[in-house]
Amino acid sequence: MFEDILHNVQKQPSLVHCITNYVTVNDVANMVLASGGSPIMADDKSEVEEITSICTSLVINIGTLNARTVEAMVLAGKRANELGHPVILDPVGAGASSMRTETVKRLLKEVRFSVIRGNISEIKTVFEGSGATPGVDASEADAVTEENLWEAADMAKRLSAQTGAVVVITGATDIAADEHKAFILRNGDPMMAKITGTGCMLDGVIAGFVGSNQDKVLEATAAAVCAMGYCGEKARAKCEGTSSLRMHLIDVMSSLTADELERGADVESRI
Amino acid sequence: MFEDILHNVQKQPSLVHCITNYVTVNDVANMVLASGGSPIMADDKSEVEEITSICTSLVINIGTLNARTVEAMVLAGKRANELGHPVILDPVGAGASSMRTETVKRLLKEVRFSVIRGNISEIKTVFEGSGATPGVDASEADAVTEENLWEAADMAKRLSAQTGAVVVITGATDIAADEHKAFILRNGDPMMAKITGTGCMLDGVIAGFVGSNQDKVLEATAAAVCAMGYCGEKARAKCEGTSSLRMHLIDVMSSLTADELERGADVESRI
Amino acid sequence: MFEDILHNVQKQPSLVHCITNYVTVNDVANMVLASGGSPIMADDKSEVEEITSICTSLVINIGTLNARTVEAMVLAGKRANELGHPVILDPVGAGASSMRTETVKRLLKEVRFSVIRGNISEIKTVFEGSGATPGVDASEADAVTEENLWEAADMAKRLSAQTGAVVVITGATDIAADEHKAFILRNGDPMMAKITGTGCMLDGVIAGFVGSNQDKVLEATAAAVCAMGYCGEKARAKCEGTSSLRMHLIDVMSSLTADELERGADVESRI
Repeated sequence: MFEDILHNVQKQPSLVHCITNYVTVNDVANMVLASGGSPIMADDKSEVEEITSICTSLVINIGTLNARTVEAMVLAGKRANELGHPVILDPVGAGASSMRTETVKRLLKEVRFSVIRGNISEIKTVFEGSGATPGVDASEADAVTEENLWEAADMAKRLSAQTGAVVVITGATDIAADEHKAFILRNGDPMMAKITGTGCMLDGVIAGFVGSNQDKVLEATAAAVCAMGYCGEKARAKCEGTSSLRMHLIDVMSSLTADELERGADVESRI
Repeated sequence: MFEDILHNVQKQPSLVHCITNYVTVNDVANMVLASGGSPIMADDKSEVEEITSICTSLVINIGTLNARTVEAMVLAGKRANELGHPVILDPVGAGASSMRTETVKRLLKEVRFSVIRGNISEIKTVFEGSGATPGVDASEADAVTEENLWEAADMAKRLSAQTGAVVVITGATDIAADEHKAFILRNGDPMMAKITGTGCMLDGVIAGFVGSNQDKVLEATAAAVCAMGYCGEKARAKCEGTSSLRMHLIDVMSSLTADELERGADVESRI
Repeated sequence: MFEDILHNVQKQPSLVHCITNYVTVNDVANMVLASGGSPIMADDKSEVEEITSICTSLVINIGTLNARTVEAMVLAGKRANELGHPVILDPVGAGASSMRTETVKRLLKEVRFSVIRGNISEIKTVFEGSGATPGVDASEADAVTEENLWEAADMAKRLSAQTGAVVVITGATDIAADEHKAFILRNGDPMMAKITGTGCMLDGVIAGFVGSNQDKVLEATAAAVCAMGYCGEKARAKCEGTSSLRMHLIDVMSSLTADELERGADVESRI
């Protein structure tokens, strides 16, 4: 189901401009490379418009935002919009501080996003305009379970209708939805929550996949989420602890084939 | 001896706010996770007070300090003090530049610390108010040996009496002391000095352990130091070079049990 | 041929001050350690002159430059010049934005460099004063092949004559040249391009090797390039994907002997 997506990634690799956090930035760069794209990190307001112009897509991740980089995010986002480049938003910790919540509001007002990806607490905050995310991880009270899965998918669809962006909620089970259709993606392993940056790395993979498949944003996003989860399962089987899990995750992605993903994908969709 | 400490870490995991350097921040985040806590990195002065409020403990590490982040350190430290959260100071490179030495003086004046951790040259600088640390590693002239071990432990106890903080001196042999009692910890491997960030990672482990054991700061700190050293020994036995040492170090920590640490600990204490 | 160089690295290890990007900084620090030096990262203008004074050599890498760090680069570079410390320039992405191109021009005007290292597109930009580097990777149109190899080496020699610096062009085949002589270095593996930071890590190795061999800048630089390529070959043979390639690269460097490099080196030189 995602074979075409991966073939396009190989045929027309994306150059992904990332304005992201300094915690996981190295993993993001290596994951973009492993998944077939090329990364460039640049966050000074004097150059972000020029840099984003030579790229295919843009990631805006507010993981360690500060006054200086927020301005660069807005400038780069607007320029990417003018050029029709897909822009991915990761509202890390939205709801954990008013600076984060307000920055996300400002970004949504000034920039059109192709994809918004977060955990359930972050997406709830984006949807409701306020929240109480307990750090950068989702609140347990918010956890997506089999019982409330379609309720969460419905929120994703409604946020998509509001913003025009494909909305991704990652967790034990992942959701990717546009206004009309939701994918439920069941690949992955709980141990992935024990390393930092799986979400940020996924942002980069999504940006690469969507950049190479600009007419199929929802499918490309779902393929990226699925690829990440599938690589996590394989990495889990090889690892001896959390740091080798991270290494194998990137290793497995770097040799993933369209065929293999086709066989390994655990995807359900509903209109 | 440290069993209770580790059980509390599991029962009541800490959320650790880190204002740390951009060199080792990813390893710190992954090590906090591996040792049972959750990390959040945030360093903008507009949000650090709010972020630290939702956390259990705070790490202030001046490894790549700059004018912007020093203000954030002071604000976060003061707020953590108001809330009674343990605050850990890592005076990286104190004595190597006057900016570092003066920043440490300011932090000690404006913030109360629960734990101060550094190498012997850094701790000497903190104790004496000036120093000549040759970079971020300890001076060979300062090296702690079996001969001057109790002299170093005595300095740690006196600095603890002055500051109210548990003082940790890491090196070939580690010391953790409050005003009344010093632990000498002999776990670890010399090869750990060949990777960057073992000290910074330890800051995060201490913050997690102390956050879950706020009534036993000295014991929790000693347990963290011991756990780090013990994991270093196991990692050394598995590794093929310095980068795999780092990977195994985090891997081993991610599966460390209270029982295993109990059997592996090499600890001596003296009043 | 490089045995003496490596012996000097062991006898007189360098302390390397790095003002580098936040993407690959951890790998740079660990690679400096693995190759026999000690790293210190500091980029605030209030302390860079003092920090560089206690070091042996300085790396200036503009990978994620911003207004704040550019000033620190100039200050540190000037101080290192006054003290006669070797200074290494990595003009990352020169030609990809005018900020990068202009910053490189300013640095070349205000600081004397011992070594300039970049990919072919970056070096062309430095040589010609303008360019159109497509991100942080070289343009395919610029690729160095067996056909245009001596033409590229000639450009390196001419840029060396202009600047006084040894010029390194890295790619499928590597070139290190001063005004009089060029080394062609054929070690390495194409898979090294699939991880971020091999160039930045090489900057650190060069700074360490040159710091310990200040009277033989060209040979020390060529030895560093050769060591990096040779370690890449060995790492390629051990790895299962891109992330383990990175780990093995640092692992292999951490146990590299002068003898082994002597046997593995694939070097040609021409006047």
